[in-house]
Order: sequence, then C-alpha cells, then structure tokens
Amino acid sequence: MNKNCRFCQIIENRNNEEIIFENDNFIVITDKYRKTSVGSICLVIPKKHVKNILELPQNLNAELLEIIKLTSKAMQRAYNVKGIRIWTAVNKEAGQSIFYTHIHILACKSIFDRLIASFPGVYDLFVLKKMSSEKNFKLAEKIRKEIIVK
Amino acid sequence: MNKNCRFCQIIENRNNEEIIFENDNFIVITDKYRKTSVGSICLVIPKKHVKNILELPQNLNAELLEIIKLTSKAMQRAYNVKGIRIWTAVNKEAGQSIFYTHIHILACKSIFDRLIASFPGVYDLFVLKKMSSEKNFKLAEKIRKEIIVK
Repeated sequence: MNKNCRFCQIIENRNNEEIIFENDNFIVITDKYRKTSVGSICLVIPKKHVKNILELPQNLNAELLEIIKLTSKAMQRAYNVKGIRIWTAVNKEAGQSIFYTHIHILACKSIFDRLIASFPGVYDLFVLKKMSSEKNFKLAEKIRKEIIVK
Repeated sequence: MNKNCRFCQIIENRNNEEIIFENDNFIVITDKYRKTSVGSICLVIPKKHVKNILELPQNLNAELLEIIKLTSKAMQRAYNVKGIRIWTAVNKEAGQSIFYTHIHILACKSIFDRLIASFPGVYDLFVLKKMSSEKNFKLAEKIRKEIIVK
C-alpha cells in the first residue's frame, strides 16, 4: 500500500469506487469520471502494486487476460455494443499518468469514442459535467450483472 | 489459412514482412507502413486465425502476454525510449480493420506518437512517404537483436 497512489487507495478504501469484479489477484472498477458515448470506461487493476504491465509477474499473465476478456464481453452485453478497445500505457512518455498497472477497456460506437478511448482527457474537454455517483453506480451494476466467470 | 486475410498471407508468405519473433503459436512483425517518431510499430499475431482477442483460446493467454512484454522491452532498448503504448481493437466500431487478432505495440516519445499509436491512419496523413523496405528491415533488425527470451 502506497499512500500517495490512487489505485492503492481504491483497493484499501473501496466504498468510493464501483467495483464490477474482484478476486484474489485483480480488481475491476468503472472510472468515476470518464465514459464513452455508451458508458463507463472499465479499468482492470492487479492488487499487487506493479508500476506497469511490463513488470507484471509472469504467474499473473493468464489471469489478467482472462479478466480483460470477461470484462469486455460483459461490457458488450451491458451496453449492447460490439466495439471494444483495450489499451495500456507504459511510462509517462506513452501517456501513463497513474504509475500502477491498469488496463483501460472501452465500449466504442464511433470515432469520437475511439478518441476518448485513447485520450481519456478528451472527455474532460468535451463533457464538462463529471458523472454523478448515482449514474456511475447504475452503469457499474449493468456490467456487474453480465460478468460470467466460467 | 484464409486467402483474403492479410495476416494469413503474412504467415504463409513471410518473405515480404519483417519478422522480429516467431514461435509455434505467435509471430511478431514490424508494420511495413507505419511508425511513430522513433520507429516501426510492432504487431503481435497468433498463428491460429482468431477474429479478435476476445476469441483467443484460453491456453494462449499467458504466452500472448509474455510475448507482448518481451517485444515491448526489446523496443524500449532498440529505440532507446521508455514510453510504450499497447492496444487492440475488437470489431469495426472500435477501429478494427483486419479481422484477425493483432496487438499493436508502439514506442512513444510525444503526444503526436500517442496519436499515431491510437489512430495509425494519422501516419498516412502526416507522413506521406511510405517507409522503404530497407529502412523497415533495419528497424526490425534492431528490435530482433534485443529480443531476450528467458
């Protein structure tokens, strides 16, 4: 636990975030502030504090990808869309702003969604109101219902 | 093998592409046409024709992520950069244009690189000349030398 790290805080003090999936090694949350035209961005985060995906321990590889897949499929069903964009940044030169591994998963319907998908800050420019906690909770609830662990 | 699929053709007829890594299940190539300010984009492609990452067989999860990591680290060393952006699109609504799983790995130094990273077509707009085969070969060679399989 690093007191200055936003994701460490989320994992410690989870009441403030909308968790859509959790197991021993990973947690999946909806982004409180940002969404595409169809709904919240999801973030897949390992519970172990690892700076970026290149430093993820090898024994977590398979599970990370499986959780990315199940979250993406749940988002497709919850938002009734086909398009999903998955990305992560390594280091600030690539746009990483929180130095704790997190994989962005975004439901996309348009090129505008893909712009938001790639540059989440665009959302702040174009959509001035932050999303209400209530709205975010409802979005998270929709995805949560669609998570199917085999 | 699907005759109309560009990646099936690459795997069948590999002389035309710059392969930087290959094993039984995956192949990594440099993109012939597109690069960021520091060098070629790399694409990680499973040999089995799978439409998108959500359909990748579970037994390939761990290996895919390991190859993404080793390619990214080789690119950091070959291009002497820290920033790496990793992304993939699922379906055309998210910008997928070749319907065969491929993960983009891009070395980034600037926001312009991140724009190219997210919208490879931008390269075609701003950098009018296609990259020569010779230049692409040299870039692939640099990365190939830095691939370290443990």
